[in-house]
Amino acid sequence: MVDSQAHKDRLVQFIHEVWDCGREDAVGRYLAPNYTLHHDPGDPWDGRVLNLDEYKDRLRLSRAPFPDQMFDVQRLFADGDTVVMTWLWKATHLGDFPGFPATGHVIRMSGATAYFFDPAGRLSGHWQITDRLSVFQQLHANKATP
Amino acid sequence: MVDSQAHKDRLVQFIHEVWDCGREDAVGRYLAPNYTLHHDPGDPWDGRVLNLDEYKDRLRLSRAPFPDQMFDVQRLFADGDTVVMTWLWKATHLGDFPGFPATGHVIRMSGATAYFFDPAGRLSGHWQITDRLSVFQQLHANKATP
Repeated sequence: MVDSQAHKDRLVQFIHEVWDCGREDAVGRYLAPNYTLHHDPGDPWDGRVLNLDEYKDRLRLSRAPFPDQMFDVQRLFADGDTVVMTWLWKATHLGDFPGFPATGHVIRMSGATAYFFDPAGRLSGHWQITDRLSVFQQLHANKATP
Repeated sequence: MVDSQAHKDRLVQFIHEVWDCGREDAVGRYLAPNYTLHHDPGDPWDGRVLNLDEYKDRLRLSRAPFPDQMFDVQRLFADGDTVVMTWLWKATHLGDFPGFPATGHVIRMSGATAYFFDPAGRLSGHWQITDRLSVFQQLHANKATP
């Protein structure tokens, strides 16, 4: 029997420690040796299977433009080996990325992610949709009026 | 005890009958008298509470540009009164909508939706993210090369 509450608690810790705080050294405590991005339109690593070092690269490069990013977890739904998380996200655009120099403006986003656990309780992959049109619109609006 | 499998089955029937087939007369068999769009960025009815007639308006107007639309359900995750559905979507752009005349081109989208059930087993609302940037990009590309 899968412990749904343990999976939910672990996911919240992972999001906070790894994605909010950017602790690369913590990745190995949460992830399986191979992590699959099953579906994540717009993510440069979409469709790939990442080892721990590759996941740390993804973490570092994804966070670089938005170093103060924070996830606001809305709800968690557990079924079998999966926990689905609905979330809001907020970050200050403090680092450059291609086509969009840093503006210091706050960017907001929302999304829903199904996280898959392996039998050892480690995260083995995800299926994610983010509202990237709203990010695209905010970045373009900030570029027009920096 | 909530019957998760019954909720999942019911949701799949609803998506097929109401959204794939556009049967307005079936809406009342699935929905609670008031249906809340808790979060659905880009949907014109986002944040509103709809009665059955208003939901039917949403159904008719949303489907008009894409009358042959089909949802391809990927996975269903049930927890308590909620079923989360991950999905792909495909439709031919056969009807006009503001700024985008019909092109006859196929449009693809993906999304994740948490559907909430009331104690009577009726759908009472949802929290949804769709990859609307990909739709935006396809519509603009088709406009450039009709």
